[in-house]
Amino acid sequence: MTQSPAPPHSESPPADAAAFRHQSVSFPDGLSLDCGAAIAPLTVAFRTYGTLDAARGNAVLVCHAMTGDQYVAESHPVTGKPGWWEAVVGPGKPVDTDRFFVICANVLGGCMGSTGPREEMPGEGRPYGTDFPSITIRDMVRAQKRLVDHLGVPRLLAVIGGSMGGMQVLEWAATFPEMVHAAAPIATAPHHSAQNIAFDEVGRAAIHSDPDWKGGRYWEDGRIPARGLSVARMVAHITYLSEQALTRKFGRRLRGAPALTFLEDVFEVESYLRHQGSTFVNRFDANSYLTITRAMDFFDLAAEHDGNLAAAFRGTPTRFFVASFDSDWLFPTSESRALVRALNAAAANVSFVEIKSDKGHDAFLLHEPEFHAALGGFLRGAAERAGC
Amino acid sequence: MTQSPAPPHSESPPADAAAFRHQSVSFPDGLSLDCGAAIAPLTVAFRTYGTLDAARGNAVLVCHAMTGDQYVAESHPVTGKPGWWEAVVGPGKPVDTDRFFVICANVLGGCMGSTGPREEMPGEGRPYGTDFPSITIRDMVRAQKRLVDHLGVPRLLAVIGGSMGGMQVLEWAATFPEMVHAAAPIATAPHHSAQNIAFDEVGRAAIHSDPDWKGGRYWEDGRIPARGLSVARMVAHITYLSEQALTRKFGRRLRGAPALTFLEDVFEVESYLRHQGSTFVNRFDANSYLTITRAMDFFDLAAEHDGNLAAAFRGTPTRFFVASFDSDWLFPTSESRALVRALNAAAANVSFVEIKSDKGHDAFLLHEPEFHAALGGFLRGAAERAGC
Repeated sequence: MTQSPAPPHSESPPADAAAFRHQSVSFPDGLSLDCGAAIAPLTVAFRTYGTLDAARGNAVLVCHAMTGDQYVAESHPVTGKPGWWEAVVGPGKPVDTDRFFVICANVLGGCMGSTGPREEMPGEGRPYGTDFPSITIRDMVRAQKRLVDHLGVPRLLAVIGGSMGGMQVLEWAATFPEMVHAAAPIATAPHHSAQNIAFDEVGRAAIHSDPDWKGGRYWEDGRIPARGLSVARMVAHITYLSEQALTRKFGRRLRGAPALTFLEDVFEVESYLRHQGSTFVNRFDANSYLTITRAMDFFDLAAEHDGNLAAAFRGTPTRFFVASFDSDWLFPTSESRALVRALNAAAANVSFVEIKSDKGHDAFLLHEPEFHAALGGFLRGAAERAGC
Repeated sequence: MTQSPAPPHSESPPADAAAFRHQSVSFPDGLSLDCGAAIAPLTVAFRTYGTLDAARGNAVLVCHAMTGDQYVAESHPVTGKPGWWEAVVGPGKPVDTDRFFVICANVLGGCMGSTGPREEMPGEGRPYGTDFPSITIRDMVRAQKRLVDHLGVPRLLAVIGGSMGGMQVLEWAATFPEMVHAAAPIATAPHHSAQNIAFDEVGRAAIHSDPDWKGGRYWEDGRIPARGLSVARMVAHITYLSEQALTRKFGRRLRGAPALTFLEDVFEVESYLRHQGSTFVNRFDANSYLTITRAMDFFDLAAEHDGNLAAAFRGTPTRFFVASFDSDWLFPTSESRALVRALNAAAANVSFVEIKSDKGHDAFLLHEPEFHAALGGFLRGAAERAGC
């Protein structure tokens, strides 16, 4: 195992995201995947915040969402933007880095330093691209497990995450129950719905239909399928916001003069979405997008247990905190309730809160004091029970 | 004014949709548009069903939705599929063609024979393409008014339509109130929401980003932006279905073996959406799609009346029947209720029904007996009051 040095935080964003060297650990023996294939070596890029205590009992693993990464609580080295969960993770925050040792890894299949389609395929002298195997949420969790073991953490005080991060939380609790003292799946579901799969498929079709995608071999002439990836991001972005949030942000406001033009953006929401799309392509890899959305679509925790979701958690020692947001239509409260019912049926210790918010799915990332208080309280309680 | 002969119904679908000759009437003096431009000549393609009675009082105008057309109650001459509203319009149906003279026109800006981006630009020897002016829902209605006058109908017994067709119904009642005895706006809203605009913008971005679109001049080399138009249709199609309908139709069912593949469609919903996209491009023009979605996005009946929706209907003689479907999230019941409140404030005669259905926005096109009974009853009542 080798571990590269942490990148200095003060660096200005590099021009080429792919060239940035992320802090990582490499496992030469690699990882066996659910699809039957294996990848070796396995590299896991990660960041940590705070200090592991002497009893090694204060580690909290944060799992990131689909297009997130390991830069939870610090400026992003590529975009220069604040960490994606600085509202929740940091000194004195609900996930208090003065008290907890926080770990976050770039997911397997991602494009921020962990093994994924953009990384070099061993012996080929080129990226994996579409030769990267199909992966599952459980494969992502197995890769994180290797990192946690490497960091010398025998048991995680908590695993926390929203959206796809929440799927990983559930898979952690189901696959490594003795490793997880407490679990907080947030704004998530035990499987992707038909509608979620459909929206993902639109994004994939947009990428596939971009001639610059070139069947996934876009690295060959140094181009990226920016148009297709941008459209994919635009449609996904709509699903992250509630109708109320879109209306509050933009309503039907026009940009400048209300001219009736054929080609230009006329409504503010249009230029906003285009901006979301065009900035995204600079930091995210199209083949990673295909790989990770497919992993989400495959996720079905009940199916992994003969159709019985409760069976995934039977006898679990983990304490659960389930949270949803009432305006989230991508992962609606009804799916969190189904999860809570299954956890109850498994006699698990579970608390559930539906947060009132009009921000939609994105609420889990934003300023939501009620949610932050509930999550912080759950974590402190878990730490007290664990004696750390 | 010239009127071309009706196409024979028994023809097999022509290979080239653009080459098909639709029944139409041409107005050499053209039409002045809301944007300030004018188009001349104005051609309106249309179909009629049933017979205009001696008193000319039994005419019902049906307005079609975004990608609909004039083939309401007969096989489509291009696709060979049944008329889009055969569940509602025909002998003995709620809109009874044994009793009523039903008119349906292809909208201005469309691509089934009415003046639109695919038609030849006068004096240019090429299609309008992106030189086609920006149009509004009111412009579409003004074009229909020319047709109705041409057909010798002094007053319409009813104007009926769903979705964008419902927007036209509202614009008819607001612009030509003395011409409209009864109006049935169905599954619609008095303006497009920010979320609706956002989804439309994704579709437009998909078309714009297809290199075959060529800035709108795709006719020059005989290609069409099929990939972009297909993606646009896919995302729109999701918004037409409820989550329940998608789940009932597809759930998370896999196609064939549950193989973990990178490139192929794996879920049934994926291949369904791809099929929806790929068949659509054979019958619809990309520049029409851009023109018509923009017209919907601009639609804001209150804004046309100083922000006061009720003012659009003050003193109206029209009787209204407003219908929504409880699982329609594209045009939710809340928007129909806002319309009804405005009609009440305008002292209009209005009845409102929310139909229970789990089919989403598409429900207005499908087998919904409760809706059909209510619409049929409303029309019969209107006919009795009008004495026809």
